[in-house]
Amino acid sequence: MFLEKVKAAGLAHVSYVIGDGNEAAVIDPRRDVDVYLDIARKQGARITRVFETHRNEDYAIGSLNLQRIAGADIFHGAGGVDFAYGEEVKEGATCELGDVKLEVLSTPGHTDESISVAFYDKSFSGDTALGVFTGDAMFVGDVGRTDFFPDRAEEVAGLLYDSLFGKLIPLGDQTLIYPAHGAGSVCGSNMADRDFSTIGYERQHSMPLQHTDRRDFIKLKVSEQHFYSPWFKRMEEWNKMGAPPMDRLPEPRALNATELSKARDGNITILDTRSVEAFAAAHIPGSYNIPLSMISAFAGWFLPYDQPIGLVVKDPAEVEEAVRHLIWIGYDDVVAFLADGIEAWQTAGHEYGTIEPVHVRDLVDDIKRKGTVILDVRSPEEFAEGHLEGAINLYVGHVDQKIDEIPRDGSITTFCGSGRRAGVAASILKQRGFERVRNCLGSMSACESVGCSVVTEGE
Amino acid sequence: MFLEKVKAAGLAHVSYVIGDGNEAAVIDPRRDVDVYLDIARKQGARITRVFETHRNEDYAIGSLNLQRIAGADIFHGAGGVDFAYGEEVKEGATCELGDVKLEVLSTPGHTDESISVAFYDKSFSGDTALGVFTGDAMFVGDVGRTDFFPDRAEEVAGLLYDSLFGKLIPLGDQTLIYPAHGAGSVCGSNMADRDFSTIGYERQHSMPLQHTDRRDFIKLKVSEQHFYSPWFKRMEEWNKMGAPPMDRLPEPRALNATELSKARDGNITILDTRSVEAFAAAHIPGSYNIPLSMISAFAGWFLPYDQPIGLVVKDPAEVEEAVRHLIWIGYDDVVAFLADGIEAWQTAGHEYGTIEPVHVRDLVDDIKRKGTVILDVRSPEEFAEGHLEGAINLYVGHVDQKIDEIPRDGSITTFCGSGRRAGVAASILKQRGFERVRNCLGSMSACESVGCSVVTEGE
Amino acid sequence: MFLEKVKAAGLAHVSYVIGDGNEAAVIDPRRDVDVYLDIARKQGARITRVFETHRNEDYAIGSLNLQRIAGADIFHGAGGVDFAYGEEVKEGATCELGDVKLEVLSTPGHTDESISVAFYDKSFSGDTALGVFTGDAMFVGDVGRTDFFPDRAEEVAGLLYDSLFGKLIPLGDQTLIYPAHGAGSVCGSNMADRDFSTIGYERQHSMPLQHTDRRDFIKLKVSEQHFYSPWFKRMEEWNKMGAPPMDRLPEPRALNATELSKARDGNITILDTRSVEAFAAAHIPGSYNIPLSMISAFAGWFLPYDQPIGLVVKDPAEVEEAVRHLIWIGYDDVVAFLADGIEAWQTAGHEYGTIEPVHVRDLVDDIKRKGTVILDVRSPEEFAEGHLEGAINLYVGHVDQKIDEIPRDGSITTFCGSGRRAGVAASILKQRGFERVRNCLGSMSACESVGCSVVTEGE
Amino acid sequence: MFLEKVKAAGLAHVSYVIGDGNEAAVIDPRRDVDVYLDIARKQGARITRVFETHRNEDYAIGSLNLQRIAGADIFHGAGGVDFAYGEEVKEGATCELGDVKLEVLSTPGHTDESISVAFYDKSFSGDTALGVFTGDAMFVGDVGRTDFFPDRAEEVAGLLYDSLFGKLIPLGDQTLIYPAHGAGSVCGSNMADRDFSTIGYERQHSMPLQHTDRRDFIKLKVSEQHFYSPWFKRMEEWNKMGAPPMDRLPEPRALNATELSKARDGNITILDTRSVEAFAAAHIPGSYNIPLSMISAFAGWFLPYDQPIGLVVKDPAEVEEAVRHLIWIGYDDVVAFLADGIEAWQTAGHEYGTIEPVHVRDLVDDIKRKGTVILDVRSPEEFAEGHLEGAINLYVGHVDQKIDEIPRDGSITTFCGSGRRAGVAASILKQRGFERVRNCLGSMSACESVGCSVVTEGE
Repeated sequence: MFLEKVKAAGLAHVSYVIGDGNEAAVIDPRRDVDVYLDIARKQGARITRVFETHRNEDYAIGSLNLQRIAGADIFHGAGGVDFAYGEEVKEGATCELGDVKLEVLSTPGHTDESISVAFYDKSFSGDTALGVFTGDAMFVGDVGRTDFFPDRAEEVAGLLYDSLFGKLIPLGDQTLIYPAHGAGSVCGSNMADRDFSTIGYERQHSMPLQHTDRRDFIKLKVSEQHFYSPWFKRMEEWNKMGAPPMDRLPEPRALNATELSKARDGNITILDTRSVEAFAAAHIPGSYNIPLSMISAFAGWFLPYDQPIGLVVKDPAEVEEAVRHLIWIGYDDVVAFLADGIEAWQTAGHEYGTIEPVHVRDLVDDIKRKGTVILDVRSPEEFAEGHLEGAINLYVGHVDQKIDEIPRDGSITTFCGSGRRAGVAASILKQRGFERVRNCLGSMSACESVGCSVVTEGE
Repeated sequence: MFLEKVKAAGLAHVSYVIGDGNEAAVIDPRRDVDVYLDIARKQGARITRVFETHRNEDYAIGSLNLQRIAGADIFHGAGGVDFAYGEEVKEGATCELGDVKLEVLSTPGHTDESISVAFYDKSFSGDTALGVFTGDAMFVGDVGRTDFFPDRAEEVAGLLYDSLFGKLIPLGDQTLIYPAHGAGSVCGSNMADRDFSTIGYERQHSMPLQHTDRRDFIKLKVSEQHFYSPWFKRMEEWNKMGAPPMDRLPEPRALNATELSKARDGNITILDTRSVEAFAAAHIPGSYNIPLSMISAFAGWFLPYDQPIGLVVKDPAEVEEAVRHLIWIGYDDVVAFLADGIEAWQTAGHEYGTIEPVHVRDLVDDIKRKGTVILDVRSPEEFAEGHLEGAINLYVGHVDQKIDEIPRDGSITTFCGSGRRAGVAASILKQRGFERVRNCLGSMSACESVGCSVVTEGE
Repeated sequence: MFLEKVKAAGLAHVSYVIGDGNEAAVIDPRRDVDVYLDIARKQGARITRVFETHRNEDYAIGSLNLQRIAGADIFHGAGGVDFAYGEEVKEGATCELGDVKLEVLSTPGHTDESISVAFYDKSFSGDTALGVFTGDAMFVGDVGRTDFFPDRAEEVAGLLYDSLFGKLIPLGDQTLIYPAHGAGSVCGSNMADRDFSTIGYERQHSMPLQHTDRRDFIKLKVSEQHFYSPWFKRMEEWNKMGAPPMDRLPEPRALNATELSKARDGNITILDTRSVEAFAAAHIPGSYNIPLSMISAFAGWFLPYDQPIGLVVKDPAEVEEAVRHLIWIGYDDVVAFLADGIEAWQTAGHEYGTIEPVHVRDLVDDIKRKGTVILDVRSPEEFAEGHLEGAINLYVGHVDQKIDEIPRDGSITTFCGSGRRAGVAASILKQRGFERVRNCLGSMSACESVGCSVVTEGE
Repeated sequence: MFLEKVKAAGLAHVSYVIGDGNEAAVIDPRRDVDVYLDIARKQGARITRVFETHRNEDYAIGSLNLQRIAGADIFHGAGGVDFAYGEEVKEGATCELGDVKLEVLSTPGHTDESISVAFYDKSFSGDTALGVFTGDAMFVGDVGRTDFFPDRAEEVAGLLYDSLFGKLIPLGDQTLIYPAHGAGSVCGSNMADRDFSTIGYERQHSMPLQHTDRRDFIKLKVSEQHFYSPWFKRMEEWNKMGAPPMDRLPEPRALNATELSKARDGNITILDTRSVEAFAAAHIPGSYNIPLSMISAFAGWFLPYDQPIGLVVKDPAEVEEAVRHLIWIGYDDVVAFLADGIEAWQTAGHEYGTIEPVHVRDLVDDIKRKGTVILDVRSPEEFAEGHLEGAINLYVGHVDQKIDEIPRDGSITTFCGSGRRAGVAASILKQRGFERVRNCLGSMSACESVGCSVVTEGE
């Protein structure tokens, strides 16, 4: 038996190849499916099945690519989603790959058709689960969100309770869990920063699972706040109809500074994937800054889907990775990158934008002098736990959308947990015409390290 | 928290890097330690500790290399072994790497100073074990062997029982296990062909752990048969004193056919790591055949430690891997490889040896005609479960040593489970002057597939 | 300025990426064009032009793939070929990529529309050629073949003379040459085993270029013997119409021994890419043996184009490379590979074929006893220079086609320069039902090394 | 015959492996010799000889490492240097590697013992040179510098003239050249940005070689200005005595921000290898900024050799490359790197330095207002060709040494060709306590692009 985790950094998505003998199945494949084909080939196996634990909303699933290339059958859970491809599987359905037996559990809650897939090592026991692919029902340290059906909030939270306590936990403490997401995902906020656990460990230590009373659990879930990002709608539609086929990654073409400048004046969106520091010192006016590893979590909030994308990268070696992160969330039209990097832009004499870095100590001084507006782009929960006095809270994902609510007079300083999301937000502000934009590098973490005074909710 | 498995294919050895924040520990490192340094560097961590779960006997441990290069402290269990390096740790000793807490459990049985190292995720719970490095106490599907102290057979089997049932199982069903070996190791025979499990799954399904009665368990262990390979002595001594330091892998030099021929006539041993098929069709007379992945399990039985080694490989790209496998078990004097491969030997006009392949159907016919001696080189246990009529059983590891017991007149056909070990044995026979040597490719598996009649013990 | 050679091992094809600033051109791309896109991206350049030095006959050209993916324009020489794509360029046409100036020279002879492309470093001199892409006009140590128009033999040899002495040599001794093929190609037989030279060096030392008298040169060329392989027709047609687009390599599926056995009984052709030695010891009956690096030079002679191909490889890691070699010459329907290799076939109990290796010394003894037919599969030229007494000469490429001319009674021993082509031929004989087939490993080289007596033409 | 170029990016050093059959030689190896061993192994060759074209002054040569690991013999030219290792070879000495004949030419001028090594392909011609390793005598587009013996300036320039016109050019126009350096090297300033040429092309187009009159040539060379960097002395001594052996690269340990901060307060030098932009936005106070690819050309000017080095890198993946660049020029004591990068420094609340970017347009405005001192850190030659009015010229390599000559009052803006060297200089200023430091990103190139007015010498 072999089981390999495939982590999509940034997306915090985890998919799996499981197999035995000469057959393998993939759970929740992403679109760039070569990673699965390579694993299977190396194992001397062919991919005969794809399981989608649910109709995903945060990325475009690659099942159809695997079907087309490897001939795999695609299976979804039943109920609710009218898929244009694949087959429905019901609770209790089983299949075998050599000595591995897979068994479908219906585990609704996150979505109605959510399934988990338990597996057994028949050479040891066909009755005791060895592991279970839990999709978005159970994570390491957390459980799935249940906020996608606001009208049915309590109902679906109850469904998840039943799935967890009635289906997954009964598999036994010994069962290893293999969820669809890890820490950093937009699909859960309490996840552990490791990628392994067991039903038994979760049962004992996952905070939501300590709410063993159904009503308590529902109450907990209903009270949670999650962001519903605008690209979810698009991904949901794609994952229902089948994302556009993709035999090879888009191939952005090298443009020099003058060519890219012209393209920008046309309809191209410029995405700068360098670090927030490098962007701060010099960037193409009008470009967005999302460092590579943050693309799949943040681009969907504000990067237009209907315009071609041109990249500014640190090194051409990063182009491919940037493209992967973009196509995971459906940005397939990546047409160009700036040849020879930002230096080429500078030496061509073009204007470049800057964002001034501010240390939190200096920022605190500024506050006293009312010298700047502080825009704290963390989530409301993080903000409530402690923020600088006078700061305005607007989640980074909402900055573009609610730009009109932000005061335009005077200097504005972005702020978050470390300066990364603040950097993204600062680039949005610049892109939308704010002139005096600063970023508090270090932000809340630095604040805690040096002991600034903070305001917590209720004070 | 990060935890990475490092598998040494062939050796069936598994080592681990675990860490959090900027510190990491390595469990049972092999000698080519760059693999650990690379993992740690990528994680932004430095290796501050090495744990040896026990004084290993089947490979040379790399702790001193990590100490010299990374400055790590080395820890062994207490009791019995008078180590020339490192420090002893006792039951209950703990240390922390960021949020990871490691705790030493004394788990003797396999050896007296064997330890296991349980670990906890303090961000969730400092009391419930998340996982445990079990060394050679518990494997996936099996437990450690206890045959190293024949005079204390029952005592040490009892110690292992206490370690398993008194220390490891009490950690709880939810605990993931991380043993020092996987399937194919010389350290256990019932291991599963997967590399993950939990205490709970093992408790329920590992055959030895079903012997919950101490006396039953002891009886089981005492009745087991294991091979004690001659190189174990050497490895034990090295691992007590500290294996010779190794800053870089040995660098074998390319020799042409004529040069290698001369070296062979000197004191060089020639090891051919190609497939048994390729070796069968043409090999340097006097050379041994151990396919790459079998080196670390079989070379120690018969490959002289006191002579330099010259390699014959399929492709120069395999030289490095062959060298790694050899140094794992203490063959550090790898001085040459045949430039341009076996074709160079052939085109230089040198004599080459051959081994005739025989299909099991034809072999069965031969038996009837008494046309050949069948040398079945599987273990006595495998032999007892079914063998061809009239076959002689001599384990592949013993062929060189007991060569005088093998009839030299007439043809001899080697036989095993698939033809691989038989191929190794055939090369030993040829090396020792047997002339008419054949290998039954497919061997027992083919026999079962085509339905030959077999003799089982007791018949 | 950057210039990178891309060598397609086996095919002995060399293509080039040349560029400066942010633009690049590719000369004679193969179909798996990612290699060019990667080079260009790393250089921060986009591929804007593809030059085809001529309508190739020995592989399928990848120009259309580059056009589709990178948007490059395609240029051919004028005259003779009615291309369905691309544009014609005439003598003297120039273009620039940064400081690189490319200039087209019409250099017919090999084909009528053959061009060479000289290049200049404008930052040093726009008048003195720095290098020239010579296509199949001039190689390192040889010149192009002129046997494709038997009716116009003298005319086209004369055209080549004019191209060499009237166009290429006048570029000056200082000019580096970049031909389309290297040693081992079917497009020339005297090529050096290195990949660099200059016009000056060739002018002084290339054998054909010592024939400075036009009539002498024509006489030389007309007297040459070359093989016209059956797949040339197919490649010529493809390269005229445009080879089928290919966005990703074919993805063969892992089949186990039983599945492959069934597929073989259907219409699949089995190609075994392992070494001749490994094939000799055990192979699937009916399979062909072409070691990986020999595929693109030999498959086209006898491997059916109208049947899907199943592979037997040493290791799954070789599947991709085998697929590449096959698609270079238009075998796009590679559907399967044997999971777990030849061992799986053996352990499943299937019959396997063998080819007996014979040392040349023993073969010489056999000849005396008339114990075997020797089939020497080298070219007539090689055969004429020296062969074993009584040997039959039939080029490896003709064995399948002229199988009826080979005596079927008794044993047959294949023979070549080293045992490699002989191994391919032996597999064809077996595939066509010959029963007692042997291969003289070492063949003529071994013969020379040990000093066998040989017959040379004229004796 | 095989010949592979090994380029050391940044150092602009080129070394070569040439061989045939099973033997190879290396010309001017760098210290991390695995690159040569890998090439040779892949070719099935062993490295039997190392040629040093001269006692290098700009990097530490790796000959002794190759001798120790591969057993190669080391050869130097005769005259002047009293080497503590290796053997002297004289004009006309030859050796053979298969069909490759190497022949030593004494080509003094750059240094007295400089040699070139011509090579011949014996299978074509033993008389006509195919190529020549020219060391620092002839480059692509330039010739070697002759300023190392100020007392003998005219004499050594004349020696170089004799070497070029009396030894190298007579090899013939057809000869390919393989120099020890490429564009960007501190060993020549007019080199082409490509890495291939021939004697014939150089003879016709290399500017210095147009000075065919000996006196003219001497006049040209004597008038040249080169920097003599302080580390040259150290490298010369090392390369005379033999650089310290190095079996593996130094292994810097991950330190967190607090640990690195303490180390900085001790005696560690902090080298930040990120881009000038990233450094500009936030850097550890007191650290130097040399982007990765600039290390080997600039570190030797000011980075202390007698202190351990701690790295700040963009990504741990860059640690190894930074270490390579450092050991090339003798910085072997690289002990640490900042775990989790500059973000970790920020979130720990430490102070960070910044350098303000200035567009050249704004800088021109500042000049008018006398708002800043402009420190132009290009070479005097570059400065003379055009600079901003009022700028002070001080070569980047001299900034640290002549820091007292730079006005400390008010703001200072660094300036160069593009903003890269200016970034290095800015970091030195900051390290030496300057407070208001700005960097004109784009610098002279931007100036030319936008058409600022510049002053040229003589105006």
